[in-house]
Amino acid sequence: MPDILHAVGIKASPDAVYDALTTLKGLAAWWTTDTRGDANANGTIQFRFGEKSTVHAKVLGLKRGELVLWEVLDAQPEWIGTKLRFELSHDKGVTAVLFKHEGWKEQTRFMHHCSTKWAVFLLSLKALLETGAGSPFPHDTQINS
Amino acid sequence: MPDILHAVGIKASPDAVYDALTTLKGLAAWWTTDTRGDANANGTIQFRFGEKSTVHAKVLGLKRGELVLWEVLDAQPEWIGTKLRFELSHDKGVTAVLFKHEGWKEQTRFMHHCSTKWAVFLLSLKALLETGAGSPFPHDTQINS
Repeated sequence: MPDILHAVGIKASPDAVYDALTTLKGLAAWWTTDTRGDANANGTIQFRFGEKSTVHAKVLGLKRGELVLWEVLDAQPEWIGTKLRFELSHDKGVTAVLFKHEGWKEQTRFMHHCSTKWAVFLLSLKALLETGAGSPFPHDTQINS
Repeated sequence: MPDILHAVGIKASPDAVYDALTTLKGLAAWWTTDTRGDANANGTIQFRFGEKSTVHAKVLGLKRGELVLWEVLDAQPEWIGTKLRFELSHDKGVTAVLFKHEGWKEQTRFMHHCSTKWAVFLLSLKALLETGAGSPFPHDTQINS
């Protein structure tokens, strides 16, 4: 199955990056301002993007400073059943985030779009941790695709 | 084989986008300032990224306003034999660029890095056409990964 892959290196501790991925406040500061639910293990998080879409993600795996893994329960049809994986590692003051949105059924046009948007949001995560300000939806960079 | 996918929509004509993908001047304004060689059909282009790496790409396919396809002849080992495909389409004043870096052997850490960098460079292409200024290497956004 095709996957979306990305990597960013963030000048912040693994704990700080992990908090931005595992708290509603952190998530709302880089992905979408309207983040609700329960970001703890086995919880379900709702990520709302205005009237357009809501992603319901179940927290499948958490390992402090190392791993965040969600499964998409409901969303736009192509996302349902896919997984979102963030693997963290640390070296010389930089926390590397290896990201994978895995389990797409086919390489659709929407998958192309989402890949570019994931880069935009991961750069928002990086900016949040390095400068104190991310660009979550609806303040995200528009790619018009 | 795993592929890197991206999409951007650019408020410019297909001809303008095509020119930015098929002339040395255009390519140097969004990917790397040090672009040399022959960007015409069957030509070979050298994209130089300082002392770090040079990508030698052969122009395999060109269709004005629709398609640009290159094969990587020489580069960092993981890129050799991969193809770079830009498919253009136009609707209501926006030229959509569907991008694919196809034929990776495996999902390495470097593939994650390159995927995010491709998003950065495609946003540079978009900025070039919409604002007149891209951010080619060495002026590209750093992702530290």
